[in-house]
Amino acid sequence: MSILTRPILEINLDSLVENFQALQKISGKATAAAVVKDDAYGLGAVKVAEVLYKRAKCRHFFVAHAVEGKEVRAIIPDAQIYVLQGMGRDSLSDFEEARLIPVISSKEQLAYWKEHRIPGIKPAINIETGLNRLGFREFDLSELSEDDKKEFSLVMSHLACGDAQGHFMNQHQLDMFIFLKETYFPKLPGSLSASDGTFLGEGYLFDMVRLGAAMYGINTAPYRQNQMKNVITVKAPVLQITDLPKGDFVGYSATYRANANRKIAIISIGYGDGIPRSLSNVGKVFFNLCDKLHEARILGRVSMDNIVCDVTDIKNLQVGDMAHLIADFYTLDDMGRDAGTIGYEIISRIGKNNRFIRHYLGDDSQ
Amino acid sequence: MSILTRPILEINLDSLVENFQALQKISGKATAAAVVKDDAYGLGAVKVAEVLYKRAKCRHFFVAHAVEGKEVRAIIPDAQIYVLQGMGRDSLSDFEEARLIPVISSKEQLAYWKEHRIPGIKPAINIETGLNRLGFREFDLSELSEDDKKEFSLVMSHLACGDAQGHFMNQHQLDMFIFLKETYFPKLPGSLSASDGTFLGEGYLFDMVRLGAAMYGINTAPYRQNQMKNVITVKAPVLQITDLPKGDFVGYSATYRANANRKIAIISIGYGDGIPRSLSNVGKVFFNLCDKLHEARILGRVSMDNIVCDVTDIKNLQVGDMAHLIADFYTLDDMGRDAGTIGYEIISRIGKNNRFIRHYLGDDSQ
Repeated sequence: MSILTRPILEINLDSLVENFQALQKISGKATAAAVVKDDAYGLGAVKVAEVLYKRAKCRHFFVAHAVEGKEVRAIIPDAQIYVLQGMGRDSLSDFEEARLIPVISSKEQLAYWKEHRIPGIKPAINIETGLNRLGFREFDLSELSEDDKKEFSLVMSHLACGDAQGHFMNQHQLDMFIFLKETYFPKLPGSLSASDGTFLGEGYLFDMVRLGAAMYGINTAPYRQNQMKNVITVKAPVLQITDLPKGDFVGYSATYRANANRKIAIISIGYGDGIPRSLSNVGKVFFNLCDKLHEARILGRVSMDNIVCDVTDIKNLQVGDMAHLIADFYTLDDMGRDAGTIGYEIISRIGKNNRFIRHYLGDDSQ
Repeated sequence: MSILTRPILEINLDSLVENFQALQKISGKATAAAVVKDDAYGLGAVKVAEVLYKRAKCRHFFVAHAVEGKEVRAIIPDAQIYVLQGMGRDSLSDFEEARLIPVISSKEQLAYWKEHRIPGIKPAINIETGLNRLGFREFDLSELSEDDKKEFSLVMSHLACGDAQGHFMNQHQLDMFIFLKETYFPKLPGSLSASDGTFLGEGYLFDMVRLGAAMYGINTAPYRQNQMKNVITVKAPVLQITDLPKGDFVGYSATYRANANRKIAIISIGYGDGIPRSLSNVGKVFFNLCDKLHEARILGRVSMDNIVCDVTDIKNLQVGDMAHLIADFYTLDDMGRDAGTIGYEIISRIGKNNRFIRHYLGDDSQ
C-alpha cells in the first residue's frame, strides 16, 4: 500500500504523432496543418508543436490567439503559424514579433490589416459557407476590390456538421465553398476541412486540412469505430476506503442515499481538475486489479477536489490504488457522452490544471 | 471602432478583501482562514494569498494539494498552510520544504504521518460527520491511542448542506461534530464551517472558519440576497456583426435555425476560455451601450473559441465593443444556474485559461 494524493495526466506523444500521420495519409496531397490552439487542447502547445515539427515534419500550425502563436514560435522557427481569431490592437505586437499569419474574417479586420501590414506575411481569408460564425459573407466578398483580393495567400472555411456523414449541410457547404472560391479567389489554395471533414472524402480536402480533435484522439467520425489512438490517460489515487451504512447520504446537498450498506472509495480528483460536475451520480471510474477491469459508479456530487465512488463489489482494492478516469477503454468521448457534452470540452479543461503530475510518454518525452 | 481579439478577466482585489473582512466580522472570535486551493479558485493563489496576508492580516490558509501550498509559501512566510488532501509519497518533499500542515483524514494517512513526521508541524485531523467524503469515521476514532490523539493541533469537519438554512443535515452534523470532538478531542480547537456555515449562526463557528467561495463572491447563502461583492468580471470583444437570413443555421450541428431575419454578433470567447458549452442556445451575454444594458441570447453551440449571439434589437453595437459574460449584474451564480451547475465550477474553470488578458484591480494590483 502506498499513500498518494495527486492525480496523474499522461500524454502519449507517440499516439499523437501516429494519429497525425494517419490523418496525413488520409489527406493525400493536401498539406496537413496541426491545430494547437487552446494550449493544444490543454495538452501543452509547445510540447505538441515541437513533436509534430520534429517527427511528422509538420510546418503549418493553427492557433486561435496570437498569444498562443507567440508561445510556440520559439520551438518552430520556420513554420507557418495561422491565427484564427485574427489580428487586433490587443495582439498586433505579438503578430509582429512572432511573424504570425492572421486569418482575416471580416471587412473590419481587413481594414485593420491594411493599416498594419507585416512585411513578408500574407493573411488567410475566412469565408462563411453555413456555420454562421466568423467569416466573410458573399455580400462582403462582392465588395472587395481586386487589390484587396491580392492580400491573401489562402482561402478557408469551416464545416458545421462534418462529424455527421451524409448531413445535408456538408454538401451545401462544399458547394458554397467551391462557388465562392472559384468566383472570388480562383487561384488561391483552399482549406475547408478540420479533422472531421478529412473523413468525408477527397472532395473535402482541397489544398490544406487543419487537424486538431482527431489528432488528440477524439472520434470526429462518430458514425463508425474510432480510427484514432487514445492520447491521454487520467488517473487519481484512492485516498480512503470506508463503509457507507444504509440510509447515509453522500456529498454536497445529500443527493445520493444508500439503500443498503455499501463500501465507498474517496478519489483525489474533482471538478477543480477538470472532471465535469455533471458526472455527479452518473459518471464512473475504473480500477484495474489483477488485470481485471472493475467499474465503480460515482456517488453524489463531484466536488472540487474529490469524488466518491461505489466499490462495494471490488475486492482487494487498497488505499493508493489508482482510479482510471480517462483511458483507452473509457475515452474522452465516453466521458463527454456521460457528462452531457463532447470530448473536446473535456480535454480542453483537464490539461489546464497544475495539480496533475503530468507525464509525457513516448520518444520525445525527455 | 477598435479591432480587438482577446477576452478580458478582471479580478477586483478590493472586493475580495472586503468580502473576507465582512466574513471575518460575521465569524466573531473564530479565526478566519482563507481557502486558496485550486489556484484560489482560478484567480491566482499567489496574488490572493498575498493580498489577504498584507491587507486582512490573514495568517491561516487552506489548499487542497501540497503543490499549491508550496506555490504560495514564498509570499506568506510565517502563515499556517493546511493541506486538505493530506500527505503522501508524492507530496512529502513539498510538505517538508514548504513547512505545510497536513490534514489527516484516515488511519492510513496517520500511519504515514507517524513514519514521516515533520519537526515543528502538528497536523489537523478531519472527522466525518455526514458528508461521507474524506475523514475519520467514529469507528476509526475509537481505535486511536492516546498518543495518536496528541499528534493533532486542530479537529475539523465539513458540512454537506451548509448552503440550505434549516436543512436537517446541518443540525445533524453539528451534533455529531460536538459529540465526536468532546469524546475524542475535548481540548483541541475545532473547525466545522466553510463560507456557507458561517451564515448558519454562532454555534457553527467554533475556533476557526475556512472562507473560500463567499470570499470569491459566490452566494453561499442562496436563501437570501447575496451579501458579498462580485469579484470577477469577464468580457470579450465582438469580432464581427452580420446578418443572419431567415432559415439559416448557427454553429456546430446546426442546432439553431433563424425563424426570421436576424442580426448576430460573433464574440471572441468560448469553452476553451472556460465558458460552459452547456450555455449553448440558453446562455446570454450583455452589452452596456450609452449606460443602458442590453441582453443578447446565445445562438447555437458554444464553440471552443467563439460564441454567437442575437443582437437584432441592439442598435449602435460595433465591432470591438465588449460583451459582458460575468459582471455585477450577471454573476458567477447566475451563469452557474443557466449552465446547469454552480458558480464554484464556473470560477474554477475560467481563471485557468491563459488567453485572457488578466487585470488585477484594487490597491494591490501593481
